[in-house]
Amino acid sequence: MLDVCLLGCGGMMPLPYRWLTSLMVRYNGKSILIDCGEGTQIAMKEKGWSPKPIDVILFTHYHADHISGLPGLLLTIGNAERTEPLTIIGPKGTTAIVGHLRAIAPELPFEIKCVEIEGDEQEFNLCGLRVKAFKVKHNIICYGYTMELDRLGRFDPERAKAAGIDVRYWNRLQHGEEIVLDDGAILTPSMVMGEQRRGLKLSYVTDTRPTPAINNNVTGSDLFICEGMYGEPDSEDKARAHKHMTFREAARIAKDSDVKEMWLTHYSPSLVKAEFYMDDVRKIFENTRAGKDGMTTVLKFEEE
Amino acid sequence: MLDVCLLGCGGMMPLPYRWLTSLMVRYNGKSILIDCGEGTQIAMKEKGWSPKPIDVILFTHYHADHISGLPGLLLTIGNAERTEPLTIIGPKGTTAIVGHLRAIAPELPFEIKCVEIEGDEQEFNLCGLRVKAFKVKHNIICYGYTMELDRLGRFDPERAKAAGIDVRYWNRLQHGEEIVLDDGAILTPSMVMGEQRRGLKLSYVTDTRPTPAINNNVTGSDLFICEGMYGEPDSEDKARAHKHMTFREAARIAKDSDVKEMWLTHYSPSLVKAEFYMDDVRKIFENTRAGKDGMTTVLKFEEE
Repeated sequence: MLDVCLLGCGGMMPLPYRWLTSLMVRYNGKSILIDCGEGTQIAMKEKGWSPKPIDVILFTHYHADHISGLPGLLLTIGNAERTEPLTIIGPKGTTAIVGHLRAIAPELPFEIKCVEIEGDEQEFNLCGLRVKAFKVKHNIICYGYTMELDRLGRFDPERAKAAGIDVRYWNRLQHGEEIVLDDGAILTPSMVMGEQRRGLKLSYVTDTRPTPAINNNVTGSDLFICEGMYGEPDSEDKARAHKHMTFREAARIAKDSDVKEMWLTHYSPSLVKAEFYMDDVRKIFENTRAGKDGMTTVLKFEEE
Repeated sequence: MLDVCLLGCGGMMPLPYRWLTSLMVRYNGKSILIDCGEGTQIAMKEKGWSPKPIDVILFTHYHADHISGLPGLLLTIGNAERTEPLTIIGPKGTTAIVGHLRAIAPELPFEIKCVEIEGDEQEFNLCGLRVKAFKVKHNIICYGYTMELDRLGRFDPERAKAAGIDVRYWNRLQHGEEIVLDDGAILTPSMVMGEQRRGLKLSYVTDTRPTPAINNNVTGSDLFICEGMYGEPDSEDKARAHKHMTFREAARIAKDSDVKEMWLTHYSPSLVKAEFYMDDVRKIFENTRAGKDGMTTVLKFEEE
């Protein structure tokens, strides 16, 4: 079960009625934040989601609207008396940029570990989730992210019995443990578990032109959160010039990538109301929602 | 005539219902900003005061709640296509701190000039105002500011006639010009103007303990904007420990300094409603107002 909140849906600059684009994900008592523009900590407070359990902050890239809120957020987390280390992951240059911003947040009661993504793709295990960064196509180096929560197969007592496995080992095997018996024999979870079941997949892509890396990575997402900077019908040239996407370009990716649902975000400050353009967008990909500040969902494993 | 807006009244961290403390002053088509925390550009937009005419940004000190909004504001001013240079004035270290923050705002269409205040006091002529920085008493180097708008004396046609000054020179003298006549004689404004009249004085003091430098400098202000971090009756120890002031300490300064009006600002995030404590504060200095986001006034020369 993943708690997902789109804290803001604006691009370029924060507005009185629209926070900058940022995503918060809670899983199993831990939180991951993607991007942190000016005001993100206020959006979090407005929503009532505490910043203290944030173990990891992922950055897509280092344009100010995606990172200018970092020093304030770190200080607020510090004021909440966090002492556990916090990991910051982002493109090459992360360590230097975080260092610059910490000029105004030099003293924190917790350690910060910076990790710079290497190459076009990199996988991480973070807070029990498989997180993958993949390079997209902006005017500076920028990554999209997928987060996957795997689901084990169902425990099969008939197989366990047939393999002659003592019932006292069942629980440990069911929870993924390998067991070495006194006689050297090894019991593995695969001996008692059915095939891996469908897990959960969440994708976050912003500040990019359409590019095959997006389709390749977001395929099959339960929720695909994607930038749509411009909604107007004649905005493709503008999107191309600024290395962003239109709502319709995002919808074509959603359709081609077989995602279950898409939320649009990162609207241009000139876009008054995303809903004006949604009828056309839904003709391309029906299950599109226009992102709003604080929009929340809970992703759950499929019922069986 | 000075337009004054207290953009926010919070200290330490921005809150959903309270922007960080920052003051904007407009005079004669130009604007001066004091402090710029996270969200200040949103507060400005909410108020409808454009950031584009900001010629000068004054910083009291470099704690994040007073400067974290700088990169975003600079980018927004840049997006508004400002090309005129912008001056940033602050304590020693200004150039380095601004340099660090510009790591996320490297490209701007206007030049930034940084000026570091020297010593305990320094005067500047900015946008037609006499601005003075004076050192206050915080846990890092911090300055308060006064802004004064001088008012010339009244033009006295009787004196001009008595001095035998040709009427065609009156207007120029009245506007402060010195005139050298063909015969080498010099006409000065003092020959036709009465005594200088009372001008306007605005003071802004935050993040400090009470200290004589405040009283010495804010004396006679039309409006004294002063921090009051804590309102509760038993909060002096806390104020002392964190190098801040209580409402009542601020009120005593206002009373002793013979100001006309005081606005409190820079409330602790734990302070729910400043108005709870105002009755006691007004017993010390009656003309105190509890600052609110977007609180505005127009300071005008006295009627005669």
